[in-house]
Amino acid sequence: MDEERWLLPTGIDEVLPPQAQVLESLRRDLLDLYRGWGYELVIPPFIDYLESLLTGTGQDLDLQTFKLTDQLSGRMLGVRADMTPQVARIDAHHLRRDTPTRLCYLGTVLHTRADGFAGTRSPYQIGAEIYGHAGIESEVEILRLIIETLGTAGIAGCYLDLGHVGIFRGLARQAGLTAAQEHALFDALQRKAIPEIETLVAGFGLAGASADMLAALAELNGDDALTRAATVLRAADAPVQEALADLRRLAAALNQWLPQVSIHYDLAELRGYRYKTGAVFAAFVPGWGLEIARGGRYDDIGRVFGRARPAVGFSTDLKGLLRLGAGRAAPDQERAAIYAPWSAAPALLAQIQRLRQAGERVVTALPGCAAGRAGVSSATPGTRGRDARAPGGGESIVLTPDQEARAQGCDRRLVEGASGWEIQALAKT
Amino acid sequence: MDEERWLLPTGIDEVLPPQAQVLESLRRDLLDLYRGWGYELVIPPFIDYLESLLTGTGQDLDLQTFKLTDQLSGRMLGVRADMTPQVARIDAHHLRRDTPTRLCYLGTVLHTRADGFAGTRSPYQIGAEIYGHAGIESEVEILRLIIETLGTAGIAGCYLDLGHVGIFRGLARQAGLTAAQEHALFDALQRKAIPEIETLVAGFGLAGASADMLAALAELNGDDALTRAATVLRAADAPVQEALADLRRLAAALNQWLPQVSIHYDLAELRGYRYKTGAVFAAFVPGWGLEIARGGRYDDIGRVFGRARPAVGFSTDLKGLLRLGAGRAAPDQERAAIYAPWSAAPALLAQIQRLRQAGERVVTALPGCAAGRAGVSSATPGTRGRDARAPGGGESIVLTPDQEARAQGCDRRLVEGASGWEIQALAKT
Repeated sequence: MDEERWLLPTGIDEVLPPQAQVLESLRRDLLDLYRGWGYELVIPPFIDYLESLLTGTGQDLDLQTFKLTDQLSGRMLGVRADMTPQVARIDAHHLRRDTPTRLCYLGTVLHTRADGFAGTRSPYQIGAEIYGHAGIESEVEILRLIIETLGTAGIAGCYLDLGHVGIFRGLARQAGLTAAQEHALFDALQRKAIPEIETLVAGFGLAGASADMLAALAELNGDDALTRAATVLRAADAPVQEALADLRRLAAALNQWLPQVSIHYDLAELRGYRYKTGAVFAAFVPGWGLEIARGGRYDDIGRVFGRARPAVGFSTDLKGLLRLGAGRAAPDQERAAIYAPWSAAPALLAQIQRLRQAGERVVTALPGCAAGRAGVSSATPGTRGRDARAPGGGESIVLTPDQEARAQGCDRRLVEGASGWEIQALAKT
Repeated sequence: MDEERWLLPTGIDEVLPPQAQVLESLRRDLLDLYRGWGYELVIPPFIDYLESLLTGTGQDLDLQTFKLTDQLSGRMLGVRADMTPQVARIDAHHLRRDTPTRLCYLGTVLHTRADGFAGTRSPYQIGAEIYGHAGIESEVEILRLIIETLGTAGIAGCYLDLGHVGIFRGLARQAGLTAAQEHALFDALQRKAIPEIETLVAGFGLAGASADMLAALAELNGDDALTRAATVLRAADAPVQEALADLRRLAAALNQWLPQVSIHYDLAELRGYRYKTGAVFAAFVPGWGLEIARGGRYDDIGRVFGRARPAVGFSTDLKGLLRLGAGRAAPDQERAAIYAPWSAAPALLAQIQRLRQAGERVVTALPGCAAGRAGVSSATPGTRGRDARAPGGGESIVLTPDQEARAQGCDRRLVEGASGWEIQALAKT
């Protein structure tokens, strides 16, 4: 096994330099974006009691959640597979505000199996949520924030998929479907398996109008879906009509607020059906088959934590954004570092501190450096006597200070001149 | 169980507003500090194959590590309890540089049982490491970085504890202790259980000098420990004398580089004994019994990942720093937000964007807001007809725009004046 100790589990990744710094920079830009919009940061825990994590979220999340036994309590813990239930708990139990509350969060979540973006099992989830407001302005703000998020990540030309779980839910109730029938049909709808849907619906033995409407749902998508729905779903009862009216109001508002964004309607779109209560949406990037961000309305998600409130939110994967984004400053375009000699001279230390405070990276020489396998050693004066501890032992290569500096990613170095410590460009190689 | 769904497992915490923003700000300051010193950020994965995590680290870390079964591979995974072995793998296997490499990292680690800072099981570990340099300049730089880290967190007056694992290790070898004897003595030394140490050493049946030196180790601490060691350990063989000489060189360098910091020597200090190879150190804050940062030299930690290199580093707990730190800008001292009406008027949107780009937080009104339990509703025009979905249903309290703005943490609002959108202070309450 020794030769495989460096292997990572499937779907689990690490981020190396310089990419890690780009990720950190995108992370900051997004948190600053949400902060600028009035979203307050919360940091939920990585593990939690299993029933807190899985409350009301259904079996999918259960199967995606890694389980642990808590030695202290003897109870089952889960590693969060989604941060939304945790944020709902924070709103319901800890903040307990009466006014609308905007929260944002980010962190790694783990999934037992890969799904979604690029087959990862460890998305870096980032999201924002509005609690305490039932109007479509919340949906509009969250959708605008999705577009801003993608723009910040350098992703342009994305389009939105929009649906409403109230339509299928209302039709299923109107038809009097059992839970098992509803689940089977939901499952077939998610796969847009039209022949299967028709067979299922025929087998339910429903009255004509209900059967027709349920069977038609899978094809109610496209730019004109809302128009066609007025005809196709005209026999639906009040809850379905209300859901349709909701969606029409949202469509009109988006037309005003996000005129530049293409919106596709899909009335069979049921992402997060079990806990969503209204509009559901996802953002897609042309040429990339999977959704890059998703969200919707999930009123009352906080009820099990003691307090039901309206809620709308979205989340995305920071590592996914990074992979799809273009135009973010490549780290190799940033200014190279400055090399400084190893010395405790106060004037030098003060100069280094000034440079660092001005945002420069200053790397200090490490004298007597036996630099690993190749046995590189330094020509800097003051070499110390611990070379016996250096590994490798290959032939020593003596570097000039400029070569050392370049090996440390520097393009300038601090040199003591007549008027103090000065920055000097490195000699050409 | 329902009424306890909001409970967190013992030793697991969440961070709420406004504290989460303070943590984020400290996080950025520290990463910027390390970046300014030339440390490159790496992001190791949260879970890993168990043997990668536990390689060479000994039983303590094993017992502290949460185990998971990987459904995909059938192998055992662990949730990282320490990020150092992962960073060592990154240096050894992925970066493979010949020059000294400075890396920094941060992230949550989990422990099965609480120990260390404030009884937490989920420290937010942050640390920095130098690979590929065997000289004491690396120890000096890492110790300077500890002091800078604590200073950045607003922690002053800390002192350092310094030891060297080579002293006990050398004495144990010189005495010819078995592994079991060495372990029993190590254990008693960690607890400074002097009568137990004397009984143990007497029971080993050693020659006089070896027995005396091992028994004396527990009392070789204090400012004069290095002076006394010259006498007390004069019969020790070459590896012990080299370790002592190492420590003296480090003491002399620290005297020059960190003259303002109190340093306590403790030759029985053996933090991380199993994988440390040289100096070991910890930082303490007066009035707080536990160490706040720790580190040392652990050469060759990368060997199992394919490449042995010298290594020195330290780590600390960001949440611990936050708790002990003073003087960081309290979030309530920052400027309050600006309230903006809900409107897609281009002039307003442009003004909001300018303000946000200038670092202001601008919160948009959510009209028709039925704000949760108290049944607060808004007096803003344009109330929409979805109040039926609002929870609570208590008596409606109509707020003025200024009251709404204040409830959203604002002290100013955007008002349309003769010359466009202007910022207006809220009316006094």
